[in-house]
Amino acid sequence: MSHQSDTLHLPCGQMRGQGLGSQGTRTQPMEMMHLQQTIEKHIMQLAARHQQQDLVLGDQRHHQATGEQEALLGNLMSQLVNLLQSGTTGGLGLQPSCPSLDVRGDVGGGQGAQSAGQPDQPVHQVKDPEATFVSQHLCNRGIVTSASYWASFQDYKMYQGDKYHEDKNPLGFINLGISENKLCLDLMTERLSQSDMNFTEDVLLQYPDWSGQPFLREEVARFLTYYCKVPAQLDPENVVVLNGCSSVFSTLAMVLCDPGEALLTPTPFYGGFVFSSHLYSKVELILVHLDSEGKKVRGLVLINPQNPLGDVYSRDSLKEYLEFAKTYNLHVIIDEIYMLSVFDESITFHSILSMESLPDPNRTHVVWGTSKDFGISGFRFGVLDTHNKEVASAVSSFGYLHSVSGIAQYKLCRLLRDREWIDGVYLPTYHSRLQRAHRYITKKLKALGIPFLNRGSGLYIWINLKVYLDPCTFEEELLLCRRFLDNKLILSRGKTYMCKEAGWFRMVFADRPLRLKQAIYRFYQVLEEQKRDLRVKQLESAQRE
Amino acid sequence: MSHQSDTLHLPCGQMRGQGLGSQGTRTQPMEMMHLQQTIEKHIMQLAARHQQQDLVLGDQRHHQATGEQEALLGNLMSQLVNLLQSGTTGGLGLQPSCPSLDVRGDVGGGQGAQSAGQPDQPVHQVKDPEATFVSQHLCNRGIVTSASYWASFQDYKMYQGDKYHEDKNPLGFINLGISENKLCLDLMTERLSQSDMNFTEDVLLQYPDWSGQPFLREEVARFLTYYCKVPAQLDPENVVVLNGCSSVFSTLAMVLCDPGEALLTPTPFYGGFVFSSHLYSKVELILVHLDSEGKKVRGLVLINPQNPLGDVYSRDSLKEYLEFAKTYNLHVIIDEIYMLSVFDESITFHSILSMESLPDPNRTHVVWGTSKDFGISGFRFGVLDTHNKEVASAVSSFGYLHSVSGIAQYKLCRLLRDREWIDGVYLPTYHSRLQRAHRYITKKLKALGIPFLNRGSGLYIWINLKVYLDPCTFEEELLLCRRFLDNKLILSRGKTYMCKEAGWFRMVFADRPLRLKQAIYRFYQVLEEQKRDLRVKQLESAQRE
Repeated sequence: MSHQSDTLHLPCGQMRGQGLGSQGTRTQPMEMMHLQQTIEKHIMQLAARHQQQDLVLGDQRHHQATGEQEALLGNLMSQLVNLLQSGTTGGLGLQPSCPSLDVRGDVGGGQGAQSAGQPDQPVHQVKDPEATFVSQHLCNRGIVTSASYWASFQDYKMYQGDKYHEDKNPLGFINLGISENKLCLDLMTERLSQSDMNFTEDVLLQYPDWSGQPFLREEVARFLTYYCKVPAQLDPENVVVLNGCSSVFSTLAMVLCDPGEALLTPTPFYGGFVFSSHLYSKVELILVHLDSEGKKVRGLVLINPQNPLGDVYSRDSLKEYLEFAKTYNLHVIIDEIYMLSVFDESITFHSILSMESLPDPNRTHVVWGTSKDFGISGFRFGVLDTHNKEVASAVSSFGYLHSVSGIAQYKLCRLLRDREWIDGVYLPTYHSRLQRAHRYITKKLKALGIPFLNRGSGLYIWINLKVYLDPCTFEEELLLCRRFLDNKLILSRGKTYMCKEAGWFRMVFADRPLRLKQAIYRFYQVLEEQKRDLRVKQLESAQRE
Repeated sequence: MSHQSDTLHLPCGQMRGQGLGSQGTRTQPMEMMHLQQTIEKHIMQLAARHQQQDLVLGDQRHHQATGEQEALLGNLMSQLVNLLQSGTTGGLGLQPSCPSLDVRGDVGGGQGAQSAGQPDQPVHQVKDPEATFVSQHLCNRGIVTSASYWASFQDYKMYQGDKYHEDKNPLGFINLGISENKLCLDLMTERLSQSDMNFTEDVLLQYPDWSGQPFLREEVARFLTYYCKVPAQLDPENVVVLNGCSSVFSTLAMVLCDPGEALLTPTPFYGGFVFSSHLYSKVELILVHLDSEGKKVRGLVLINPQNPLGDVYSRDSLKEYLEFAKTYNLHVIIDEIYMLSVFDESITFHSILSMESLPDPNRTHVVWGTSKDFGISGFRFGVLDTHNKEVASAVSSFGYLHSVSGIAQYKLCRLLRDREWIDGVYLPTYHSRLQRAHRYITKKLKALGIPFLNRGSGLYIWINLKVYLDPCTFEEELLLCRRFLDNKLILSRGKTYMCKEAGWFRMVFADRPLRLKQAIYRFYQVLEEQKRDLRVKQLESAQRE
């Protein structure tokens, strides 16, 4: 059975264009209107062709109904603007409902500052006492940034200070919200402790090449050439190394889009890019149904394998996206950070770099890093590969503020060079552990009767808890997320992926068996609690009638 | 003999207020006018009290005449704006005359894109063929950023690809332009290779605390408490760790100033901050004579020990700056990155952290890092210490894009903890090597009859080559800089420090004896060549008359 999918990854039907319809009356430049309509037409054509969602519950397939939900991203932006305009100094008490950074710095659900008990009073009720200061010294954008950061990261901060450990801290937080690969830390620690790694020389201690040390860029080019099956050897000059993929994304947004311009993206979608692209560069990510207000669209952002759905794009699907982008002179930023995390052997991952010819090579930019596939997010390492020297050069300008420690660059180079270890030891172990963890988690979900998307890649699984919400709203989704948190379990919720339908959660399973077992225990407890409360609520309601 | 100085570090008299005078007719909000006038009055009072420059030539003191020169910074900004407005796609062929990043990413003089032979045709004549592309794909700010970067970094790129080495590359570039401490790479390599350094554990490989790992922030707090003689132990919660001081500066500019607002700074001044503060945050650094157009001033930036002059501020001078800032509710960002690089034993460095009480602790922010004092710029490590939790928190938001590799954080922690090695081995050796290098370079300068500022701190010396310029203009300064470059010697020129008078250069001497000797040989050759050319020029001119 193949779980590979050609869909546009919108289990909630976000691509059917309701958004644009309601925008028709707004005043927009004719050109923009036209572009948006054309884009939508194409997206809908693509969607129509691929739109079956194989949502798996046990052996059953459920077709999800579509709901009308708010576009969180637009809300966020307008709230930020409001904050700016009001010049408020409320600081952390005033954070907007921001998408959380659900992969590269996830927080466990992006629950905002709303306290569990008072969903309707989000503004002045914050759980974290540290988050209640009043800003007297920050400028407006400092306030907005702080608010947005805390909205996204307060759970992550809590987690950092109180991590679960079997012996030392059995009551600490278990984080299945952040997409971290904790399956092979033993292998990695062992490899990184070998004697070849502990090397220092002058060049590593001095100011670097801001594009990344040449030896590392050469190694990255060889590595990607091999694992992405590139027809011709990649040019190291096309490679830029920065401190993390979020930095790559932030800088791409800086050099491809002017402030207020936008990048297009299918949803549900990794929320961290929303944060990265906005933090410095004030670029919007807009959903494919295009409910934006006359924004100039500069590009398309894809993640393959997809996050949070776990889909792997087929070669045809990729080509269609690229052709579509070329037609409208759109840049394509494609994030392949999960490319070695495909654990279902029946699925073939196709890197965009493997194509014989790209429709628009100068507007195609590939992002990769070791955070996921090698489980070393702490290294802070991200790679851009682009045929476009101009873009590579402009992104390098930011290397001045985003470069990687020389000694870390050296270790990364040694690591990527060691194909014998990667192919002979690391990847086989990693994939078999991923498979086992996936088998475990899907078995448990099935036993609990919880629908999920059964995919064969990524570190996470997209699950549906709508039966535990009554009514099925984002407020209730948030409350459920809070309840997980109160039980020291972090999950990330659909709203932080700009999902249109309430009730979806992303659960990371790339963790060691013991911790996963403990997590599932807590998960079960919360759902039981939630069920009891729902029953009471329904009985009370019945009594009143 | 003490070289300590209480001056405002303006050897060229930039503080005498010519700037403001010429601004009087511009339309400015009354409030701004008033603020500027008041600030200027204060600065002038401070300046009048301290303004003697002890420029040393042999034993003679020369009082430098003041000249009227352009404010480079304003030019840069307006050129950037022009570039933006014209929407030009000339890319790298069009870079403005940008201040180079003369310390943390120096380029060796920031000579812009002008070719040596055609100073009047800077636009289309670029030396580096790589720099001639035409931008078809970047957005406006991408073009501006690229242009500004290349203007600052093209020499640095050349240097990176062609470094001098006694045996392997004796014809390569020697870089006395970038402020790097190459004196103790042997000690550092040895220390970093010891077994305690090669340690890896899970927490180092996973997503970090975006403020910096707690263990490192604790160690930094202890370290600064000890070396800055802080009355009470610093709170690790006040410490934020990012990947370099430029990142700290960039993020402070982001959270303290809205776009277009400004920070005040005495000149000549480290040009890298101009780049850092503008790259993302679009904040201007304005000179103390305030020839800006109604900018809102949010703070004051000081470097102690000063860069490029090498002055160390007295305690009284620091207090006056702080009191002045408090009066006008200005933030003070003080960069103490050279605090352990004071090699004259008669000079005492006073950290702002050593004060019993700060006039306005919530607006006082200290920056430090290991790039200079420990000569490990390649680690990418910078520290913010601020009493203001709000600022610390807002800066931490950017840690998401500016964090340091976990393994580097670990090594930094081990390094800073090893006081026995620092006090017993490293610092004594470092200071004695700095002294020797300084003795060597000043002896050579005296022999050549070249005036310089004789200070006792920093890695560089501020020298005056105006007698080699005829006429003494910034164009001729640039040509001389190019001539050094043609002879594979990189120096940074005064204009990149916003110096008002042409002819000043910063020469870094923190290098090993052999390389320094070779550099001085090249330096001598260039000056001889320059002298010959000047003589020919003068003779030709005499003949014509």
